[in-house]
Amino acid sequence: MYRPEIKVIDCTVRDGGLMNKWQFDDNFVRQVYQSLNQAGIDYMEIGYISSESAFSRDEVGPWRFCGEADLKRIIEGTEKKIKLSAMADIGRVEYEDILPAEESSLDMIRVACYVHQVDKAIALAHHCMDKGYETTINLMAVSTVGLRDLEEALDDLAGSRVPVIYLVDSFGAFYSEDIDLLGQKYLQRLPGKTVGIHAHNNQQLAFANTISAIINGINFLDATLYGIGRGAGNCPLELLISFLKNPKFNVRPIIQVIEEQILPWREKIDWGYFIPYMVSGVLNQHPRNAMLHMESKDKDKVTDFYDQMTSPTP
Amino acid sequence: MYRPEIKVIDCTVRDGGLMNKWQFDDNFVRQVYQSLNQAGIDYMEIGYISSESAFSRDEVGPWRFCGEADLKRIIEGTEKKIKLSAMADIGRVEYEDILPAEESSLDMIRVACYVHQVDKAIALAHHCMDKGYETTINLMAVSTVGLRDLEEALDDLAGSRVPVIYLVDSFGAFYSEDIDLLGQKYLQRLPGKTVGIHAHNNQQLAFANTISAIINGINFLDATLYGIGRGAGNCPLELLISFLKNPKFNVRPIIQVIEEQILPWREKIDWGYFIPYMVSGVLNQHPRNAMLHMESKDKDKVTDFYDQMTSPTP
Repeated sequence: MYRPEIKVIDCTVRDGGLMNKWQFDDNFVRQVYQSLNQAGIDYMEIGYISSESAFSRDEVGPWRFCGEADLKRIIEGTEKKIKLSAMADIGRVEYEDILPAEESSLDMIRVACYVHQVDKAIALAHHCMDKGYETTINLMAVSTVGLRDLEEALDDLAGSRVPVIYLVDSFGAFYSEDIDLLGQKYLQRLPGKTVGIHAHNNQQLAFANTISAIINGINFLDATLYGIGRGAGNCPLELLISFLKNPKFNVRPIIQVIEEQILPWREKIDWGYFIPYMVSGVLNQHPRNAMLHMESKDKDKVTDFYDQMTSPTP
Repeated sequence: MYRPEIKVIDCTVRDGGLMNKWQFDDNFVRQVYQSLNQAGIDYMEIGYISSESAFSRDEVGPWRFCGEADLKRIIEGTEKKIKLSAMADIGRVEYEDILPAEESSLDMIRVACYVHQVDKAIALAHHCMDKGYETTINLMAVSTVGLRDLEEALDDLAGSRVPVIYLVDSFGAFYSEDIDLLGQKYLQRLPGKTVGIHAHNNQQLAFANTISAIINGINFLDATLYGIGRGAGNCPLELLISFLKNPKFNVRPIIQVIEEQILPWREKIDWGYFIPYMVSGVLNQHPRNAMLHMESKDKDKVTDFYDQMTSPTP
């Protein structure tokens, strides 16, 4: 039997956009939207909400901003069953740039933060709630956070009005035992709240860790089409939907949009399982060095990369 | 702390050979052997042991036979710490073609069988034990075996002298919950025996399911370099070795041989995560249709493949 509390959030455009500066054309975004809508997915995270002053439109595409006109252009003329979400980074969006929810096509704003930014994240999320949005806080990079800091952050989040808190494996470093331990800790320290999972695939564990999260009682699940995303990418949506038993989900539109819109990106950009991402995951490091290595002409010199990452710093 | 009972078996040449009819040159096999030897891997499965009458040497390479002269050519002049294994298929090797262990470079023979062949497998494995080899029986495709047949097979295996029995997810269909359930069943029904795991990666779960197996007390673990193998491939050895804590393991030679010998095969052959393999795994089907689709000019027409695999048969 399925668990009706489970919600699936597709992050294809938002997380995939980290690879190409959100330069997806409207045709791509519209087909992703329509396919997810048809597949019964609960939320589509269509990008980041940012102030115009935070980035130049010459450098990044429209989904770094999620302006209302851009959103309308995608969804107009469709029967919108799926909810739309945007992610907000601390310091890149001003409160006054967030429209009241009734004037926006967005249903949810997810605030991403590091552990030292929890108070700012709560304030921003409360502001979004007061404007009428659903919200989550996604606490990033917890694989590098000490126990005292983590428990303090969870206690702060427990005292907030924010209803959904995410366990985020930013570096793809977690094994199922970490998900068991942290999932239980989040659920115990956040009474009455929903917990979410956002996993990365450095060790081919994003889907498996999402299953572990489900078994532990985590109910908000992030995924992307074919795992597209920065570096090693994410939990593949087609695997997750095939695993979940809720009859409202339909995998066929997912496979079709992968064929028509995602496979062509495979020719242009590498994401997924590669040795540099595996090494950074195993070492619990930010993937930035691995990404630099993958962009270099020496990307197949993986032993050099391993040596560089494991050599003692002088 | 690590569990000293855990043994790791690399199947790169044996299982990878299913993709290219074991046409690896000596340089490839020798570097794989030396790297595994150096990395502290317990066993290298170097191919299948077959009678000359079962295959033509015009069609398949030497590692379909594992002749003693071929084995000697690989290991000569080296300090052999790793044990060598070969797999035997029921009906493809005659008893008299198996050398006494003291005349062979092989240390272990693993008998692969389907559930209806268990009695033949036990007889062949006993014959190998009497000739001085370590043995295992690898019971394939159990994801399609009914409970009564499975329990009867396990009871037969419990009554045999064969010390190691494998749980094999031939179709890449299992989730961690299946590994939990079946791993416990194998261990309960096979008192005093060691249980092994051989996982396939159709749903990106080969490594995760191997971890689940370890947690359940399974101690013989199969893997291949970079997951190379038929179809979606196997549990990647570099991930497994990075997970295991035994200080005798060293991942660097593994990464080096991946760079020098495995990445070049990536240019020639597709293995790993592709939608057709994902679909056959989700549907608990033999990968043969997916492999045919992947070899066709229409390999990216994955929606057609999905429709074909899920359409009701007339």
